[in-house]
Amino acid sequence: MTSSSLFTPPVTHRPDPSLAHRRARAHLTLHGPDGEALADRDVVVRQTRHAFWFGCIGFDLVDLANADSRDPGYDQRLADAWLGVFNQATLPFYWGTFEPARGTPGTARLRRAAEWFAERGVAVKGHPLVWHTVQPGWLLDVARAGGDAVTGAGLAEVERLQRERIRRDVADMAGVIDTWDAINEVVIMPVFTAEDNAITPLARARGRVEMIRMAFEEARAANPSATLLLNDFDMSTAYECLIEAVLEAGIRIDRLGLQSHMHQGWWGEEKTLRVLERFGRYGIPIHLTETTLLSGDLMPEHVVDLNDWQVDEWPSTPEGEARQAEELEAYLRLLLAHPNVEAFTYWGLSDRGMWLNAPGGLLRADGSPKPAYERLRDLVRGEWWLAPTPLRTDAGGRVDVTGFLGDYELSLPGAPGGPALPFSLDAPGPVEQTLRLT
Amino acid sequence: MTSSSLFTPPVTHRPDPSLAHRRARAHLTLHGPDGEALADRDVVVRQTRHAFWFGCIGFDLVDLANADSRDPGYDQRLADAWLGVFNQATLPFYWGTFEPARGTPGTARLRRAAEWFAERGVAVKGHPLVWHTVQPGWLLDVARAGGDAVTGAGLAEVERLQRERIRRDVADMAGVIDTWDAINEVVIMPVFTAEDNAITPLARARGRVEMIRMAFEEARAANPSATLLLNDFDMSTAYECLIEAVLEAGIRIDRLGLQSHMHQGWWGEEKTLRVLERFGRYGIPIHLTETTLLSGDLMPEHVVDLNDWQVDEWPSTPEGEARQAEELEAYLRLLLAHPNVEAFTYWGLSDRGMWLNAPGGLLRADGSPKPAYERLRDLVRGEWWLAPTPLRTDAGGRVDVTGFLGDYELSLPGAPGGPALPFSLDAPGPVEQTLRLT
Repeated sequence: MTSSSLFTPPVTHRPDPSLAHRRARAHLTLHGPDGEALADRDVVVRQTRHAFWFGCIGFDLVDLANADSRDPGYDQRLADAWLGVFNQATLPFYWGTFEPARGTPGTARLRRAAEWFAERGVAVKGHPLVWHTVQPGWLLDVARAGGDAVTGAGLAEVERLQRERIRRDVADMAGVIDTWDAINEVVIMPVFTAEDNAITPLARARGRVEMIRMAFEEARAANPSATLLLNDFDMSTAYECLIEAVLEAGIRIDRLGLQSHMHQGWWGEEKTLRVLERFGRYGIPIHLTETTLLSGDLMPEHVVDLNDWQVDEWPSTPEGEARQAEELEAYLRLLLAHPNVEAFTYWGLSDRGMWLNAPGGLLRADGSPKPAYERLRDLVRGEWWLAPTPLRTDAGGRVDVTGFLGDYELSLPGAPGGPALPFSLDAPGPVEQTLRLT
Repeated sequence: MTSSSLFTPPVTHRPDPSLAHRRARAHLTLHGPDGEALADRDVVVRQTRHAFWFGCIGFDLVDLANADSRDPGYDQRLADAWLGVFNQATLPFYWGTFEPARGTPGTARLRRAAEWFAERGVAVKGHPLVWHTVQPGWLLDVARAGGDAVTGAGLAEVERLQRERIRRDVADMAGVIDTWDAINEVVIMPVFTAEDNAITPLARARGRVEMIRMAFEEARAANPSATLLLNDFDMSTAYECLIEAVLEAGIRIDRLGLQSHMHQGWWGEEKTLRVLERFGRYGIPIHLTETTLLSGDLMPEHVVDLNDWQVDEWPSTPEGEARQAEELEAYLRLLLAHPNVEAFTYWGLSDRGMWLNAPGGLLRADGSPKPAYERLRDLVRGEWWLAPTPLRTDAGGRVDVTGFLGDYELSLPGAPGGPALPFSLDAPGPVEQTLRLT
């Protein structure tokens, strides 16, 4: 028995609805190529990127990125809407769809999709490296080692293949995908009963912590600079206990992923704040990795596994759309107010092809924007964004810029083809910066 | 990052309703003082103790044991009923009632109660050494260090006192209480909100695993041969995750305590088997530490914290009593069928003074037995018990005894004051034993 603990004292974050912790005030001093201060000059400053990750899944744009869209007009409109608000994309690496036949992974196609986003200034995350759902059938055959039942030898081989798969895919994508949901839904993993798969018995045999260690260890080895998440939908004390187990085991979690599929209704302010407080206390930055808010009827509360809710039609309604917009705004304001939250990912831009056929998109199935899309854009590219703004330097060549943390450009309107000077606001509060034209 | 894991491969237990794993068949050979086989002799064999722990709380008998009963007639009937079926008692060591004023623990009184049970062949367990409920008010003052809010220095002192308390009480009771619920309800401990107390902020600051380490470490130091339990009411994946955290941390749990207060209805066969399977897989013997089954109306399902259900009257009914007897029998048969279950503790013999005023006793408030009591006695001291049984040795002095694992006595009816030979059935299956009269 050892007395050392890797648990660290809890961190208390004080939510601040003013979002002061997300804003900086830069005192810029401009110099010309000759080093002289550029006094009394008109300049235009504009924001080019948010530091906060406003994310969405990019599953629907893989075809377009690979130039084999079956509905190019629709997909292009989708792409425009997508790029109109988001700066982080989650791409699907579900083993069962990524490598349906053993030895033929969809690497090239996913890499192209990731590059397509990266070329547009979007950070990309892969999801997920280990999960018990959307498994390839051939892996269950491996676990069964040719028989009817899973065997110890079969599981050893499954583990070897799982490790190999993590190393391969993380290495193949390194440089274009450097953030991964390393492992998904471990709380339920060893006791999952909805469908036979090879990962559940492996998790049962090895234990939850070992599964997490495996995912993080292999991903870290393949890409030491990757940002790795532990991700779960279970917001109960179970996930807290799992996190404390992982901390005790000395496994470094870079980010904590919290899903928030709210098919049964918005959490509301009280629950949202409580979740952020409970999971924020570990001092690990939080990503809200999977958010859904419906613009139609809610799923009944008695449904435990959301996948069990199968309906023929699930329309988006005007009342539902108004509610969705309100809830999305309220939710986002709470997330940004919490200093420990770094990212928010919406789980599907359009109702077309949405998980469970739910009206959870921000666009309708025909691609037209719902109020929630417009509300989101008004925040992300409006209230929280610095549009091109004319300013004038003072006699000392100084100009003040206040804005959300992120990347910016300063340009001289008199020189349209001229240089745009990039600068960043990296930390809240006041900062001095000097920019020099070359 | 280390690659070693203390998690062990899961154990699969196959429940056997025949209870063959709880029975032995002893081939006894009897010898006289001269070493000659006692051929063709009449003998009587009777069971004196079950190896399985059929337990109950002994809170109500502390007064009687200390000879200061306020209702000696009732308490004596209670004692007779208690001793008529049970062989393990749980005694209350709630800090708040055990040491309501700092420095005046109820050691003598509890020790006398424990001795009273021990004198009657009953094993005693103390409950619990660490818990966030039934806390002494003075401990919260310590946590607040004289102010209004809990401080780090206050918590350090609370931890010191908690450690001291564990060592003191475990040492004071050693020899008469050698089994402890070392820590109770850790899953909810750091996020418990129902009442202010000093242990919740300590658990939040130190983490769940450290709280468990503290409890086990101190209790083990004070009584190295003690049997120590981790105990919880949370049968969800949260408790699994906590157990896996504890295993990863290298803390030795001797027994796993599962509460089963079924105020909202019997779990039923499916849930019971699933719980035993899920928690049995860690290979740690299971104690069902706190069982309640009602003989009246059930508590509505919407109640989350059972303590929230406050009613003026909660009568035992004839239909409820019939149901309770059926459920208790079905439940017990499932527990005994599971090879990993070692103990079952019923949470209150009589309706008088029952937790929440619930009709969960096996006796009515007037002390008369409900059908469940009779059903339990018929099993524990009937179907599963070897009453005094006349047998006859063969020409070789041999006689066969089949019975539940436990302690037995063989006596010679021709010699009433004569020696009774004790023997034990310790392991299932056939066994050879030789007994010699002295």
